[in-house]
This record gives sequence, structure tokens and C-alpha cells, in this order.
Amino acid sequence: MFVGFVGLGNMGAAMASRLVGAGHRVRVWNRSVGPMEKLMGQGAEAAGSLPELAEAEIVLSMLANDEAVRETFLRQGLLAALRPGTVHANMATVSVSLAREMAGLHRERGVSYVSSPVLGRPDAAAAGKLNIMAAGSADAIAVVQPLLDVLGKTWRFGENAEQANAAKIATNLTLACAIEAMCEAAQLAGSFGVSPVALLGMLTETAFASPAYKLYAPLIAREPTSPAGFSAALGLKDVNLALAAGEAARVPLPFASVLRDAFLESVAHGEADLEWASALARASRRRSGASGSPAGVLTPPEP
Amino acid sequence: MFVGFVGLGNMGAAMASRLVGAGHRVRVWNRSVGPMEKLMGQGAEAAGSLPELAEAEIVLSMLANDEAVRETFLRQGLLAALRPGTVHANMATVSVSLAREMAGLHRERGVSYVSSPVLGRPDAAAAGKLNIMAAGSADAIAVVQPLLDVLGKTWRFGENAEQANAAKIATNLTLACAIEAMCEAAQLAGSFGVSPVALLGMLTETAFASPAYKLYAPLIAREPTSPAGFSAALGLKDVNLALAAGEAARVPLPFASVLRDAFLESVAHGEADLEWASALARASRRRSGASGSPAGVLTPPEP
Amino acid sequence: MFVGFVGLGNMGAAMASRLVGAGHRVRVWNRSVGPMEKLMGQGAEAAGSLPELAEAEIVLSMLANDEAVRETFLRQGLLAALRPGTVHANMATVSVSLAREMAGLHRERGVSYVSSPVLGRPDAAAAGKLNIMAAGSADAIAVVQPLLDVLGKTWRFGENAEQANAAKIATNLTLACAIEAMCEAAQLAGSFGVSPVALLGMLTETAFASPAYKLYAPLIAREPTSPAGFSAALGLKDVNLALAAGEAARVPLPFASVLRDAFLESVAHGEADLEWASALARASRRRSGASGSPAGVLTPPEP
Amino acid sequence: MFVGFVGLGNMGAAMASRLVGAGHRVRVWNRSVGPMEKLMGQGAEAAGSLPELAEAEIVLSMLANDEAVRETFLRQGLLAALRPGTVHANMATVSVSLAREMAGLHRERGVSYVSSPVLGRPDAAAAGKLNIMAAGSADAIAVVQPLLDVLGKTWRFGENAEQANAAKIATNLTLACAIEAMCEAAQLAGSFGVSPVALLGMLTETAFASPAYKLYAPLIAREPTSPAGFSAALGLKDVNLALAAGEAARVPLPFASVLRDAFLESVAHGEADLEWASALARASRRRSGASGSPAGVLTPPEP
Repeated sequence: MFVGFVGLGNMGAAMASRLVGAGHRVRVWNRSVGPMEKLMGQGAEAAGSLPELAEAEIVLSMLANDEAVRETFLRQGLLAALRPGTVHANMATVSVSLAREMAGLHRERGVSYVSSPVLGRPDAAAAGKLNIMAAGSADAIAVVQPLLDVLGKTWRFGENAEQANAAKIATNLTLACAIEAMCEAAQLAGSFGVSPVALLGMLTETAFASPAYKLYAPLIAREPTSPAGFSAALGLKDVNLALAAGEAARVPLPFASVLRDAFLESVAHGEADLEWASALARASRRRSGASGSPAGVLTPPEP
Repeated sequence: MFVGFVGLGNMGAAMASRLVGAGHRVRVWNRSVGPMEKLMGQGAEAAGSLPELAEAEIVLSMLANDEAVRETFLRQGLLAALRPGTVHANMATVSVSLAREMAGLHRERGVSYVSSPVLGRPDAAAAGKLNIMAAGSADAIAVVQPLLDVLGKTWRFGENAEQANAAKIATNLTLACAIEAMCEAAQLAGSFGVSPVALLGMLTETAFASPAYKLYAPLIAREPTSPAGFSAALGLKDVNLALAAGEAARVPLPFASVLRDAFLESVAHGEADLEWASALARASRRRSGASGSPAGVLTPPEP
Repeated sequence: MFVGFVGLGNMGAAMASRLVGAGHRVRVWNRSVGPMEKLMGQGAEAAGSLPELAEAEIVLSMLANDEAVRETFLRQGLLAALRPGTVHANMATVSVSLAREMAGLHRERGVSYVSSPVLGRPDAAAAGKLNIMAAGSADAIAVVQPLLDVLGKTWRFGENAEQANAAKIATNLTLACAIEAMCEAAQLAGSFGVSPVALLGMLTETAFASPAYKLYAPLIAREPTSPAGFSAALGLKDVNLALAAGEAARVPLPFASVLRDAFLESVAHGEADLEWASALARASRRRSGASGSPAGVLTPPEP
Repeated sequence: MFVGFVGLGNMGAAMASRLVGAGHRVRVWNRSVGPMEKLMGQGAEAAGSLPELAEAEIVLSMLANDEAVRETFLRQGLLAALRPGTVHANMATVSVSLAREMAGLHRERGVSYVSSPVLGRPDAAAAGKLNIMAAGSADAIAVVQPLLDVLGKTWRFGENAEQANAAKIATNLTLACAIEAMCEAAQLAGSFGVSPVALLGMLTETAFASPAYKLYAPLIAREPTSPAGFSAALGLKDVNLALAAGEAARVPLPFASVLRDAFLESVAHGEADLEWASALARASRRRSGASGSPAGVLTPPEP
């Protein structure tokens, strides 16, 4: 298929690359040139300008946030350039209200709008192992399904695009809650001299033996050594998406309120760029008057 | 080995039965006679009185709460009856402060005190698949290890008995947080017409594919049909154990504070005996002005 | 002075009327005609169109929210019509970010922007007893000061317009907290059979003998009988202003987070239009499983 | 009247001294001798032993907490020494559950138990300006009323002693909430460069012009210079009394939960002995990444 792809951050680039590798014709566009050149080296076409993406049958977007979607599709005119019958699948984590608004604006132009945000990090994208939450008209999803199948497994959440966003936002909230729960548990047990490594090790081999817990436990029990895969600033953004969706639907979310304050405290302490799990762990330690190594106790090496 | 076992509730009875089945000599005692008779039918001995348990080499206890431990070991005199050199392994979820106090009182009498609370429900106990968190002197744990091995897998958390309690209390807090997180996620997505069954189904097959999430997701997405395995009242008790331990160690636990209020609200609404996951789900719906079926929307049958 | 006045809601109309009564030439504009006609009966001029307000030396605005300010001054062009040297004093409770943005846009046009939000209800406005929080350049405030003096007492909070908004938003947060505190206290004491009327009566005659507590205590202790002076929906708006300002300045506000969830719960229960104090009181009772009369107990008439 | 008085801390000593000054025969007892000697210099009798207090018609107690009441009246036997017909008025802030228990134990002995906790600091006690919340049988209160009249103004809250405790605990919760509200408001406004002194100055001269706000505002806006009148540790104790009463009555108190975590954080940071208002102000600043002077900005001297 002939695919236009806009938004070549870490995730977008990995996804576009995967589509190229699967033999699709992929025309890419990005605000900065570097990522485009890299994709060209893998066989992608570079659009000469943003509107040239509109020549594709399908446009996939993986832009940073609501504002970037508005900038690209509305102010810079990509939506206006799309021909009736085109399908646009927005794969980023954006707000429910943006999804609703975009679905309406696309409909007016005869363009189908599909929300298909993804769960997974760039390595999962590169391996075609993303989990994709899709919502939109069945016909439009059927059009993009071959592309989604290259990227991972699709989970359907309804006929209204915003439903996939609600599912994705709820998923990210669940992730953030799991992290905070581990932080509180580690800090509590650690204050009695229990090694966070030992506690979280047990949890992630028993009741919580799942990818999410296994991914984040080490970031909580030990100080991070590598750049953030997902930062506290992005955590704050995601929690705000949950709170905004909750407010629109009149759903109080007390855990989300706690998380908002915790991420805000992280940002206030200059830790906006820290891995979100590490940031919550530090906030937990800070509240307890501890500092230095995780949970305020020396964490012994794992046996 | 010759084991005394006190506390034949659902968990205790399953554990004692398992020990009998493994060929150990088990002498049991319980406040009410029914469970003792059932165990006798399986080959256990019944103690004629509580102090007769003291003839065993090891005493295991699985009593309901701090108060029951104090009643049995202090007021009714079981501790005073134990001979120096005996090991008492307390397998129940009790407070850190009780563990500290009991460890001291046992030490004065020359009796070893081991904390070895368990993670798992009665069926896991019957199958020898509990996860056991143990703390205490290495020598004392070595004595009871053959029994623990019959009951499940042992995880060691330190030389001070209370460390196992801290680990268990932290574990239960993590469980309660996971449940509340699923409730908020289901309520949020559900308010946009996303089926809680579908959302939690995806979560528990992907990032949260772990025993705890798989166990509780159905109780959140659907109304419960069977008696509670673990009630809201017990949830409140466990969260209070976490808050008390946190206060002793000066560790603020904001998620635990939210959970306390949520369980308290459940009790205030006459739902003390409801399954704890169902109770939190109802509290979440109630806050949103919803009622009736889970998440306020009709939950379609799973495909 | 020749004053243009836009925004004749309950507060705006009372303020404009007061200015007319003090002998100022007041030209008014409002989205709907009714309030304009009423003011004309009192001696005000009606503008034939919004831009005609620009003929005045000073423009005062008392619009409902950020959106109404943007609509009136930006989209409908009032700002563009103002002549350099004019002073615009925005007396409404709007966001810190809007104040910052408007100050900049006014500056570009050579117009002075003063933030001067007010504390007080329409009767206080009519009596010239408002408390006015003012910020902006000293010169610009000096120009409007004679008008502010007609309306009440001025408190100065800095040279940047947004500082007055920060002070007003902080003030409203303090009010909402006072209300929630009385609700929790009344519900707690009420659950032991203490009359909320008696408890709040004592508090407001002793440690809390202040206008704010005396105003709201009766709305908490008894069911409201008159239309809302300030609704739960407006309470939610104000708490959101506080949370947004806090996020911009990286200040976690845990009480504000609790209030947000409480007001959201009120809205979810169809109580958006209820007096905000009554709404918080009901939320407090609802959480406790109580319903009906305040605090779940029969409130005896005051002695 | 012949009064026995036990508990000569700062408050108790001021109260006993006031009673002596009013011409009552006051026999005192205290754990340490110093305060007794001081009272003797003012005309009080010293009891030779605790039970000698029982010769009085009325016993007033002003002990530090539940534990001290239990120690004095139960373990050290003062209750057992009281003659039937005596009235014991407990003027301290203790738990609702202790009041209920003590009322029952006194009734069994034919002794009347009145709860009459007080609002006010030692200087108010010395001046006879306390506010006294009283509950118990009308007859018993009538007996102690002449003494209460010497100490301040009495507010009646019911026939069950515990009702006065519920009222007092609710009052202290309201105080703590007012302090936290001012801290959040000051921190929020302060982050925009608004002087906390100016903001709280305005609030305490307008909507919040009450003794409680006027007392605490300076402690929030400026660093404390004198020893704590009421410490963070006592604040934590009082919030815990509220949470315990709420749990007994099944009343969730979300503000109290926030306060508990805040005071706990203070204790964790070594600020247990700091004035409670200063401690909450510091916690607020700490969360915002600020330190040093109040609200993180230089507070100019008041104009």
C-alpha cells in the first residue's frame, strides 16, 4: 500500500521503518530532516512538502501531542490536502476531545479518521509487537488493518474514534498506578530494612509477573543509569489526559489526582526528564525524608 | 515432624490439611470444634486444650488478626506453655508492631518467633503453591523450612521477624492498588462506551498479564456472583496495616490513604462483606453517579 | 470619568449601577439586551455596538470566564478598537495564563491592562463594599483607582497583571477549602449525634468568626432553600483555575485535588447548579452512606 | 468547691491556677513535682499521692492523651479510688472511643463522667476565656458548671460524653484544614511573586477575619522564631483522632487523609517539634521544590 507517515520521533521512526521493511511504499515527513534521511536510507520516500503526503491512500500520524496534531493537520493544512476517501489513522496518545474534534473535521472533508494508539516502546514497534487499540468505522479500520498487522496486534474498542483514545489513556493510567504502587510498597518495606530489589523481585515473579511490572521494578529498586524511555514530563502529560477525559465524562479519578501531584512535584524538583518510574520512586523517598539510594537503604546486589 | 497448628479458618484448615497429607504429625486447635473434627477425619490429632499444642516441636499459627494472636498466645497462655527451643511460625497477616512485640516476648521465653505470612488463597494452600514471606533467625527458619516447603515457595526477607510482615503488608497494598487502578481505568473508559470486559481483557493479556490482574479483572468488569474470597472489610484492615506501618516508619503512602477512604465508603454503604474488588468497583461507579451494571454501561458477553 | 463597561451579569450589573450612581458616565454593552436596558433606566448609555465602548477613557470588563474574554476582546475585536493610552481593567476571575497573554496583547497595542478581580457578591458590589485585588503598572492602576474606590477597597499585589489573578485564585481556593473543612467537621461530629447547627454555630462564634464561615455554615448545616449564589459548576471552574496556575508554577495543591474530585462528583450527580457549599455537604454525606437531611441526622432548630 | 486536678502541663497548670484564683479549694497532682510546687505557691494543695485526689467532690483531668488517661485512672487506680457520686470532667482532647469506654467504666462505679475538652491556648485559660465543649448527663454538667464558668464559655453537645470529644476533634480538624488551605494559597500566589504576607494579610482582614486565621497566618508567611505552641507531632495526633473517629462512624474524611500524610512527612523530615502551621508551610514549599524563606520568595516587610 501507499502510506504517508508523519511524525518520526523514536516511535514513529521505528514504525515507519517496520512498514518499509514489510514492503509498503512509505512516504515520510518530519519537522526536522534527520529522521527523514535515515528512513530514506531504508527505502522510504521523503515528501517534498507536508501536503505531498496526501497523495498516499492512507496517512498514519505519530505526533507528540494534541498541539502537534492541530499544527500539522489544521494550521499547516494536511487535512485540507487529503482527498475524500483517504483514511487517516492517528496512532499517538492524544486527548479524547481532540479525537472527537478531529473525527468531525475529517468527516466534513469525506476523510475517515481512525484512532489507533499503541502500547509498547520503540523496540516493540521495530519487532512488530505493539498492541494497538483501534476505534473508528469498521470500513476504515479494514483499510488500515494490513498496516496495523505489520506493527502488532489490534484490539478493537468501538465505532467512535475517541473510544480507542479512552482505552489508551486508561491503559497509561493503569501503568502509572502500577508504578506508584510499587514505589509505595518498596518505600514501606524498605523502611523496615527489606531490600526493594528482593521485594519487587518476589512480586514480579509471583502475583505481578507481567511485562509492565517486570519493566518498571528495576527502575524503582535501583537508580537509573540510562536516558529516560518515558519521562516524568510525559507521565504528567498522560495523567492530565486521564484527568481531562475524566472531567469530560464526570468520572472522579482519585489515584490520577495523586499521580498528578507526584509528577508535578518531580517537575518542581528538576526531574522532568527523569524516567517516570524513577521520578515517582524519588518522590516517594523524598516524602519519607530519605534520599540517596533507592528506598533510603543500601540495595544489595541481586543474588 | 510434630506440628501444633492453631487457627483453622479457610486458609489455616487448607494448610493443616496439606501438612497432614505430607505425612507430618499435626495436632490442631481451633476456637470452634467443626474444623477440628474435619481435620481429624484427615488424620490430624485434636488437642484437648490449647496448651496441649505446646507438646509439638513447632507451632504454626494462622489466626485472623493481631487481636486473635494476642488472645491465643498471651491471654489464653499458649506462649507461656511453649518450651524453650520451640519454634513458633506465625503465618498470618498481622501488624509490624505485633511482630516486633511477639518476637521480644518469645525471646524472653527462649522460644523462636518466625514471621512467615503467605500470599495465596485456600486452593493454593491445598495445592502447596503458596508464596511464603519469611523472616526471623536463620536457625529458626531452617527448622520450619521442611513445613514451608510443603506449603509453597519461601522468600526470605531478613533476620527480624517484622521484615516479613512489612513485605506482606507491602504486597497486599500493591494488590489493592492494582484493583483500584483497574476500577478507575474501567470506569474512565466505560464512560466513553468502552466495555470494561474488553479493556481489562486486553490489559490482562498484554502489559498486565499476571495472576493478580487476571484474578481481579472479572470481579471488576462484572457483578460478583459468589461469596467474597476477600472482603472489603478485610481490605480496610489490610490498608490500615499499611498505614500503621507507614506511620511507624514515617512513610507517607498517598495511594493507601485513597484506598482507606474508598474501603471506608464501602463499609458505610453496607458493602463490608462484598468482595474487595467488587466493592472498589462499586465505589468508583458511585462517585461517577453511575449505578447498576459495572461501569454504568451494559457489559456485553465476552466474544 | 467616561467608562466603558462590558459584561452585565449579576456582578457586572451591580458594579456598573454603582458607578452610574457615583456620577460617572458609563457606557455599557452586554451580549443580551435586557441588562443594558435596565442600566439605561438608571442613567447609563448603551453602546450601539461593542467597538463603541472604545470611545471611553477606561474599559472595565466583568465577563464570565477566559473564553468570554477572548471572544469579546480578540474575536469580536474590542481590543483592536481601543485607542493607545486607554486602560482596560479586567475585574473577573480568569486564569493566570489569560492575564499574562492579555497583558502582552494589550501592551502591543499601547493599551494598559490591569487585573482587578473582586471578592464579594452582588450586594457587596451594590454597596461599594467589594474587596478588589489589583495588579498592573502603577500608572494604569492610578487611572482606574477612582472607579475602584467607588466599588470597594483595593489591595495591591504587584506590577504584573497576573499577580492579582494569582491572589484571587488563591483566595477562592481558600474559600473552597474552608467549606470542605466545615463539611467534613459537620459530617464527622454529626455521625456521633452532634447537631451540625450547634457545631458550626460554635465554630463561627469563636475561632472561625469570620464573614466567609458565617456565610457558608448555614448552607452546610441546613438544606438550601434559595437559588445558588455560587454553584458547584463554578466551584469546579475555580478549582481548575487553581490547579492550572499550580501546574504552571509547579506547585502541587493536594487540597485542590480533593476539591476537584468532590465538585466533579457533584456534577456527576446532577448537582452542577447547586450552591457550592451545599454540593460539598451532600458529597460528604453521600460518601458516608447518609442521605436526606444534613449530616444524616435530624437538625434541630437553633435554640 | 473542693476540686481535684490531675495533669499540670502548660494548659492544666493555667487552668488549675485560674481555679485557685477564683477561690476554689484545689488539690493538684502531677507526674513531675515542679508544676505542683508552683501551684502550691499560688494556694493549691498538693496531693500526697494520686488517690488523695479522690477526696475532692469533683476531679478535673487535663492529661496528654488516651494513654495518660488510661495510666492515671485505670492502671494507677484513680478511678477505683473515686467515691460514688463524684464527677470527673475530662478536659483534654482524647479519642471518642476512650470517652465511650471511660463513660462506661465510670458508670459502673457510680461516678459521673463528663467530657469537656477546651479550645484555646494557656493564655486564654489563664484569662478564663477558653471555649469549652461539654457533653454528659445534665446533672453532672450542672455540678461542674461553676468551675467551667471560671475557665471560659461552655458549649453543650449532648448527653453522651463522647459527643463533646467528637465536637472537639472536628474543631481541631477544621483548624488544621484552615492552616493547610492558607499554606497552599500562600505557596500558589507566592509562586507568582505575590507576597504571602500581603495575601494572608488581605485574607485575614476580609473574608477570613477570625481569630484562627489571624493566629496562624503569620506563622505561615514568616519563619517561626519562638518555640512551638502546638507542634506537628500534636497535629498528627489530632488528625489521627479525627481519622479514628471517622473510621468508627464510617465517615471518609479526604482532607484529614491529606493532612495525615503532610504531618507524617513533617515528622519524617525531623520537624515533629515545629509549630504545626510552620510545618505545613514547609511541607508545602518542599513539595514545590522551594526552600529557604516562606513561599520560596523573599517576603518584604509589611507596609
